[in-house]
Amino acid sequence: MISQDTIVALATPSGAGAIAVIRISGADAIAIAAKVFTSVKAKDILKQKSHTLHLGYIEDEGKVYDQVLLSIFKGPNSYTGENTVEISCHGSLFIQQQIIQLLLRKGCRMANAGEFTLRAFLNAKLDLSQAEAVADLIASDNEASHQIAMQQMRGGFSNEIARLREELLNFASLIELELDFSEEDVEFADRTQFNELLNRIEFVLKRLIDSFATGNVIKNGIPVAIVGEPNVGKSTLLNALLNEERAIVSDIAGTTRDTIEDELVINGIGFRFIDTAGIRETQDVVEGIGIKKTFEKIAQAQVVIYLCPVAKDTQTLAAVTTEIEKIKNQHPLKQLLVVGNKMDLYTPDELEALLQAVPGILLISAKDNSNVNTLKEILLSFVNTGALRNNETIVTNTRHYDSLLKALEEIQKVKWGLSNGLPADLMAIDIRQALYYFGEITGTVTNDELLGNIFANFCIGK
Amino acid sequence: MISQDTIVALATPSGAGAIAVIRISGADAIAIAAKVFTSVKAKDILKQKSHTLHLGYIEDEGKVYDQVLLSIFKGPNSYTGENTVEISCHGSLFIQQQIIQLLLRKGCRMANAGEFTLRAFLNAKLDLSQAEAVADLIASDNEASHQIAMQQMRGGFSNEIARLREELLNFASLIELELDFSEEDVEFADRTQFNELLNRIEFVLKRLIDSFATGNVIKNGIPVAIVGEPNVGKSTLLNALLNEERAIVSDIAGTTRDTIEDELVINGIGFRFIDTAGIRETQDVVEGIGIKKTFEKIAQAQVVIYLCPVAKDTQTLAAVTTEIEKIKNQHPLKQLLVVGNKMDLYTPDELEALLQAVPGILLISAKDNSNVNTLKEILLSFVNTGALRNNETIVTNTRHYDSLLKALEEIQKVKWGLSNGLPADLMAIDIRQALYYFGEITGTVTNDELLGNIFANFCIGK
Repeated sequence: MISQDTIVALATPSGAGAIAVIRISGADAIAIAAKVFTSVKAKDILKQKSHTLHLGYIEDEGKVYDQVLLSIFKGPNSYTGENTVEISCHGSLFIQQQIIQLLLRKGCRMANAGEFTLRAFLNAKLDLSQAEAVADLIASDNEASHQIAMQQMRGGFSNEIARLREELLNFASLIELELDFSEEDVEFADRTQFNELLNRIEFVLKRLIDSFATGNVIKNGIPVAIVGEPNVGKSTLLNALLNEERAIVSDIAGTTRDTIEDELVINGIGFRFIDTAGIRETQDVVEGIGIKKTFEKIAQAQVVIYLCPVAKDTQTLAAVTTEIEKIKNQHPLKQLLVVGNKMDLYTPDELEALLQAVPGILLISAKDNSNVNTLKEILLSFVNTGALRNNETIVTNTRHYDSLLKALEEIQKVKWGLSNGLPADLMAIDIRQALYYFGEITGTVTNDELLGNIFANFCIGK
Repeated sequence: MISQDTIVALATPSGAGAIAVIRISGADAIAIAAKVFTSVKAKDILKQKSHTLHLGYIEDEGKVYDQVLLSIFKGPNSYTGENTVEISCHGSLFIQQQIIQLLLRKGCRMANAGEFTLRAFLNAKLDLSQAEAVADLIASDNEASHQIAMQQMRGGFSNEIARLREELLNFASLIELELDFSEEDVEFADRTQFNELLNRIEFVLKRLIDSFATGNVIKNGIPVAIVGEPNVGKSTLLNALLNEERAIVSDIAGTTRDTIEDELVINGIGFRFIDTAGIRETQDVVEGIGIKKTFEKIAQAQVVIYLCPVAKDTQTLAAVTTEIEKIKNQHPLKQLLVVGNKMDLYTPDELEALLQAVPGILLISAKDNSNVNTLKEILLSFVNTGALRNNETIVTNTRHYDSLLKALEEIQKVKWGLSNGLPADLMAIDIRQALYYFGEITGTVTNDELLGNIFANFCIGK
């Protein structure tokens, strides 16, 4: 799979800016750059040290393309592990295209998506989970997902997996050694110690697997559906939470036809708020579609905020409690938060009646921004941020999660085998399989298809 | 005006990409970077040489922001002439914002638009016309405008102006010396040589002023209006020229309601094609607006293509010639090109009749792409590309054009004075004034308002 040619791509976002960076990597990177670069100080680029910068012109056949800064990195001391040149040119699209086309004519090939990082992996500059963290890092848009990606890129997760793998490998060697002496009925591997190790591995795997629930929501944001009768103030609440006028707010019941999604970051955790059409029975066709969408959105949400209407009489209070029961019955596993909006409209007696009828209701006024911060704090409490605070490894990648699940299954098979006196040769198969799944995460075991899938999701130029 | 603080800005286009570059410039640039950068090789950033690259982490108070590459440039050997650090970080918006905010906390200030280049000018790394060329270079989107900006940035224009200025300055000194000896009635400045110089300066100024017509169209593209009866194939022609389906093409007469503008680059020269609604008399309100726009567009265009309908009978041929006469009378100064589309629909006899009735008509078939290239060549012939081919200095900037016009006026006053025996002290005033306008171009003479206007048009980060 590893290709020896020299690749080129734009590394900065496409579009016009002050500067743009074009990256070249491969054995001939410096030689190709030397063909088109003229140093203002007449320096020979081929003779320059690694990690140096040079001012000059990109020129070819008497035509000057741009004044640029050239960065030189000599393999293996570069991101890819190969010779690498970065050309920092003026940011016009025209110049970017002209220089890239010139480099293609001089022997470079356009890089595929993620090919620079793929080469870094193939040249052992990063393991696979670190390479994946690079993409996560670029995609991260809040503190928590950034922190996890950063930890993973710096090798935190890989180290944890590698430690477990090594210990298991030691035992695997001893067990397999026993196979060579199977006629003599010896036990090189201490079964008590082995059982202890398996328990420890099982514990760590379970913790990592459990962390995926947190990791996944941190990476993608926690979906929160806001539901309630029409005109109860859902859009106003959403706006208060988002501190800006994203949703259409009006006094006409049933105004919000489309679901509007927006993200709010509370203490570094992303929440995706889903504003929905009301759940009132309706004859209106368009609104009918909106209500169908509402139920779909509740199904997708992890947290449901039921926004209670102004309820001052026993009849409305009864209707509200019925509604809340209905949501609880339909979605027993969702976190439900009952919020009473427009608290400024109640008399003290009416408030008392409401609190009695709906225990645990959070009273707010979206309009006046009262108690909106308390609502944010409650939302935050729904997320298990303990692991994040304790700097524990959190799994965010579905591929890693799958491999961890499979590894756990194999470890549990080995444990069962151990306690049921399974022959060493059969146990060795399960251990090898568990080791395989560990290796999948860091890329010790890999295949072209897997690599293709992973790096296809990268942007070009990385 | 020069401020001594250290400025920071994103230098790459905003948006997500593989990498982003954050630029810091000012006396404290390296010191501030050192506060937040930890080299992977534990290098002391303050002790590194200019033009070197360093891998490490942006860290503060135990929090790791990103793994980055740091470029160090020590003043005066940098773009701005000051100490400069460029941080090449991962391209997430979140990371970019976090790092910039961190640098602001550590003592940087957000750079204003163009402030890096302004500092380069104030530190005499570039003169004013070179600084302006940087913005032109970033904005250039075709070969010709790129080439002119590149030449200007490398000092071609400035050198030409500086040469004239110096020669004039020599004579000015001699003339002013005469003033000191005015009682003695001496002539230090040889009047014949002086007259010769003034003629030469006048000639160069006129050439530069004339080049502005070319420079302006090269910078902004040559506006070409395509007009004709409805359904004559204007959108089809536009598409054939542009080689893609930008305009709505249909068989219903009067389909094109909105003017559609698009740019085509022929041999490096940009043409902005203006597709217009037909010029047929109409009762339709919407199309009526379109036709009003058509006349406005013709007024803006430099070249008008009149697309002739299929004309096989004497009546239609007469209508066509009337139409052409109308355009010629209304727009006597525009380049008019009569194009007969759908040539595939004519018999040889009908073609003959058309060529007789409309001499000089170019017959094409937009549908089959026949003669479309000939059309492109004719368009190109309308542009005076001689100066471009001969690598002469071309003025593209309205500010320079204005200064040149004013300088020319003063030079002509001096010439008049010289031939009419004006006293040296009065001539000296006009010469000083001419020198002032030369200085305006390169920035030898300047003021805060002028600089503010020029650099406000730059992007932030440049």
